Amino acid sequence: MIDLKSYIRNVPDFPKPGILFRDIAPLLREAFDETIEALSAQLDAHEWSQVDAVAGVESRGFILAAALALKHRKGFVLVRKKGKLPPPVVELAYALEYGTGVLEMQAGSGRLLLVDDVLATGGTLMAAASLAELAGYSLFQAVVLLDLKLKPPFHWDRPPVRAVLEY
Amino acid sequence: MIDLKSYIRNVPDFPKPGILFRDIAPLLREAFDETIEALSAQLDAHEWSQVDAVAGVESRGFILAAALALKHRKGFVLVRKKGKLPPPVVELAYALEYGTGVLEMQAGSGRLLLVDDVLATGGTLMAAASLAELAGYSLFQAVVLLDLKLKPPFHWDRPPVRAVLEY
Repeated sequence: MIDLKSYIRNVPDFPKPGILFRDIAPLLREAFDETIEALSAQLDAHEWSQVDAVAGVESRGFILAAALALKHRKGFVLVRKKGKLPPPVVELAYALEYGTGVLEMQAGSGRLLLVDDVLATGGTLMAAASLAELAGYSLFQAVVLLDLKLKPPFHWDRPPVRAVLEY
Repeated sequence: MIDLKSYIRNVPDFPKPGILFRDIAPLLREAFDETIEALSAQLDAHEWSQVDAVAGVESRGFILAAALALKHRKGFVLVRKKGKLPPPVVELAYALEYGTGVLEMQAGSGRLLLVDDVLATGGTLMAAASLAELAGYSLFQAVVLLDLKLKPPFHWDRPPVRAVLEY
């Protein structure tokens, strides 16, 4: 097993002073297959058999979710920022550190695996999970590559998010 | 072979009046495996053996490129909009219909397969190709899912872009 963390670059003060950015670009370039294998292993075979589709949160979540969807021959579902998906869409506004974000999905059904790259405060993943349910899906599980272990400002009353790596 | 086009929804007047939007979201949800197989078939086995990494153009290009990268066990490379990648980055500004866009990549090397979802005027793909070369890669080939067959406003002095579907 290779050390995935050794491919993650720590960039201080990006995108703004005081933030330590975990850059997964070198990991995706040098160890993409191993990264997807580690994400895939967050669910066992029985769990995978229950997943109908894999949803990626724009933009980096798309990368991981798409590879997982292909690996397990599932459908791919987009969770997008406002204005990118053609109507009809279901949307959900949520609080960001400064201001408000809006995510959109098209209506659908089935058991959804929700994928994003990083769990920070959890606001985006929480919004995506609620939005998926509003759009008609049931949330089977949420997985992320990195859990930054920041104090969550929200109440996550769902199966605990699974993460490949923690910081 | 399934009819991929039958899963693409035509949405008039999105994102603005007069534009006929080709919505690939139903295709990705219902026939993701077949879509990636059709993209994969744009290169033969010998060509695939020469590809070092697959680059996706943000955001929908990420989806297709990531699945292709996994399928062929290649590295994944990000072509992002300005301000998303931590420094150091190489950037390239290009003309949009209204205003200017900027794409960014991290420096790298090797033969790159460049992937995006739609070829419209070609401005974005052209910029991504030039940027990839500026960043140190050699462009092996560019593939898209949909070629809208609009008159290209640019001179593409590279191997012709390959497309799964034409409109």
